[in-house]
Amino acid sequence: MTPPSIAILTTGNELLNGDRTDTNTGTIARRLNECGFQVDMSVSVADSPDRIEAALRQLAQQVRIIITTGGLGSTGDDLTARAAARFSGQPLAVNEEALTMIRQFATRSGRTLESLTERQALLPQKAVPLPNSVGTAPGFWLQHQQCDLFFLPGVPAEMTAMFDTAVLPTLQRTFTAGAAVQRRKYRLFGLSEPKVESLIPYQKLPEGVDVAFALDYPQVIIKLACSKADADILLNSAEKLLYAALGEFIVGQNDDTMAGQVGHLLTRQKKTLSLAESCTGGLIAQLLTRQAGASTFLERGAVTYADSAKIDWLKIDPDLLHRHGAVSEQCAREMVRGIRRAADTDLAVAVTGIAGPDGGTTDKPVGTVYLALATDDIEQVQRYRFSGSREQVQIMTAHMALEWLRRYLLGSC
Amino acid sequence: MTPPSIAILTTGNELLNGDRTDTNTGTIARRLNECGFQVDMSVSVADSPDRIEAALRQLAQQVRIIITTGGLGSTGDDLTARAAARFSGQPLAVNEEALTMIRQFATRSGRTLESLTERQALLPQKAVPLPNSVGTAPGFWLQHQQCDLFFLPGVPAEMTAMFDTAVLPTLQRTFTAGAAVQRRKYRLFGLSEPKVESLIPYQKLPEGVDVAFALDYPQVIIKLACSKADADILLNSAEKLLYAALGEFIVGQNDDTMAGQVGHLLTRQKKTLSLAESCTGGLIAQLLTRQAGASTFLERGAVTYADSAKIDWLKIDPDLLHRHGAVSEQCAREMVRGIRRAADTDLAVAVTGIAGPDGGTTDKPVGTVYLALATDDIEQVQRYRFSGSREQVQIMTAHMALEWLRRYLLGSC
Repeated sequence: MTPPSIAILTTGNELLNGDRTDTNTGTIARRLNECGFQVDMSVSVADSPDRIEAALRQLAQQVRIIITTGGLGSTGDDLTARAAARFSGQPLAVNEEALTMIRQFATRSGRTLESLTERQALLPQKAVPLPNSVGTAPGFWLQHQQCDLFFLPGVPAEMTAMFDTAVLPTLQRTFTAGAAVQRRKYRLFGLSEPKVESLIPYQKLPEGVDVAFALDYPQVIIKLACSKADADILLNSAEKLLYAALGEFIVGQNDDTMAGQVGHLLTRQKKTLSLAESCTGGLIAQLLTRQAGASTFLERGAVTYADSAKIDWLKIDPDLLHRHGAVSEQCAREMVRGIRRAADTDLAVAVTGIAGPDGGTTDKPVGTVYLALATDDIEQVQRYRFSGSREQVQIMTAHMALEWLRRYLLGSC
Repeated sequence: MTPPSIAILTTGNELLNGDRTDTNTGTIARRLNECGFQVDMSVSVADSPDRIEAALRQLAQQVRIIITTGGLGSTGDDLTARAAARFSGQPLAVNEEALTMIRQFATRSGRTLESLTERQALLPQKAVPLPNSVGTAPGFWLQHQQCDLFFLPGVPAEMTAMFDTAVLPTLQRTFTAGAAVQRRKYRLFGLSEPKVESLIPYQKLPEGVDVAFALDYPQVIIKLACSKADADILLNSAEKLLYAALGEFIVGQNDDTMAGQVGHLLTRQKKTLSLAESCTGGLIAQLLTRQAGASTFLERGAVTYADSAKIDWLKIDPDLLHRHGAVSEQCAREMVRGIRRAADTDLAVAVTGIAGPDGGTTDKPVGTVYLALATDDIEQVQRYRFSGSREQVQIMTAHMALEWLRRYLLGSC
């Protein structure tokens, strides 16, 4: 038996006027994919019983399973049950099981039932209600002609809970899945997406391994997927080829962040860090402290925006600032020395630059950044010229600083 | 004449396995909406000429205009032109105008043309090519039976540029638009989304004004939309009702951020600010310096994670830390005094707390935060208990600090 054909139908005006981006389709598709099912098409229609009914009719001719989200609310837009009733030729009737679910949810969450809410128990006569662990509106399951139809709420958290507990197990019980898709992700830093794509050894990759890309600025993410029986072996061999071609730019796998890795390395090596940030305005500190446990390695960070702060806390010579400016190799060097001395840490990083959009000069255009690293055994300063918006320059600078730390800690610096 | 019915067709395996969330539909829908056009449905299908052809056939029976994105690339998945040719019964032929566009783009961007790229000039015989200002693949416009079909690239930047320069003007020239939708956004801080929804005076809102919600944690966004002829008047009256019901929680309109407002107020009032952050790890500084011009008001920020940093830079009495701990009202008070003294600024803010997930105690559970503000005329410290993940506690704390600053600067503190 081959896996069944599947369509996702999302309903809601807000999906068709740009007010909300539909994430339910992706959530459902990803979960189905992981279990060896494949979505063939997805459709969005407005909150109109006619449109929903027409879409159900068309999809029912093409696929074996339809998963619908949205339009089960207690407000004006609870149109899906009506559309489903018309589509299936069944009258709407109060479903006692659904009513019990709604009452139980009300009791559990300490709410009073409004009459509107009970309207959510009006389902097509032969529908099987699906419990909603997160909200009031039950979903339902309908079989009509050759088609299984599941109707879920539109609120992502409610939809996801119901899909996981009621829909997926039913599908797995009833249908034969294909091979589950195995996935791996690699995070790269230092190359653009087209550049990464051009360096992928497509010709050598084993057949059955799919490659996709995503951008998590400033990182490029390579996604490998394989649904063959020997997926592990194929993915291992693809991974080897990726590392051979792009290894020096791969900074993490799956959901490893660069800040997370740096934190992990510092903690493991029992090393302390201090930061002096100018143009990044605290972003490096913020990325590192977003991870739990940052207090074991981060002694302090200085956001020294004004010259007075650089002079006071980092002991920068006012003459130096006057002669070379705050955005200079000399200043970056003094900043990293100053913060390391003040905080007495193993490592220190300093950045000073022009994030823009204003403040650039011919000599030092917007995007000019000086990065400095100091430890017991090294002291290095480098000038960069980053491009993009103010935010992109800040993000790129912070990640370059993290990359310096990562490489130093990995001993490859 | 009524506005034409419109469908959007997006193509790509990555949209149906959860690898990528489709943003093109929302982008197109929003732009059409602003010009008085309305999308009736959207469909996504996999990268298969059969699926694409079938979708085109079905949509062509239902709508007057189809806008397709994706599948124009030079790699293996340039299937859309083939599907369009089959759908329209026209042979594929090299389109000389398209070829010229591709060559011109190559020259302009200094690239060499590969033979693969020229395949992008293979279009259905009667197609009108649409120039791509951002990438190589031209789009095309096809008229078949009663339907106008536009085929655009899938890369969002290319799609958007082509839509704006080639598709929208054509639609506006050819079809009658309905009333353009006028939109307003209000950003609220301090209430949950269900709470905001429950306080909306739905009964009193003028007919024809639609209300939608979005979450930009920790802010809730209320979106009003109206397409009536007197939309301005109706939206003004709805806005009045919103302010009457929720005014004290409305912190901005449209794309105003709280950090942007605080920066703007500080700049206008020529006031300076310094920050001492513990549990937020630089997030407040980072939010403020993401805006251009932060150097006019931000003197410095301290990320004082270790006690030694608090003692050294903020002159906190080690005894006080020992007696009350770093997460205490006393410490927050000394931190804000210390940073204001060191930086000599008009305003100073300090935060200390337990962002979690570890470090909580019975007295001071995870989420306990002390916030302090000091100026020439006031000094205030308050204890909060925020809930959620580490990141949520940090974000909520930072925004509460910004809210204190905003209120103080607005003179309502």
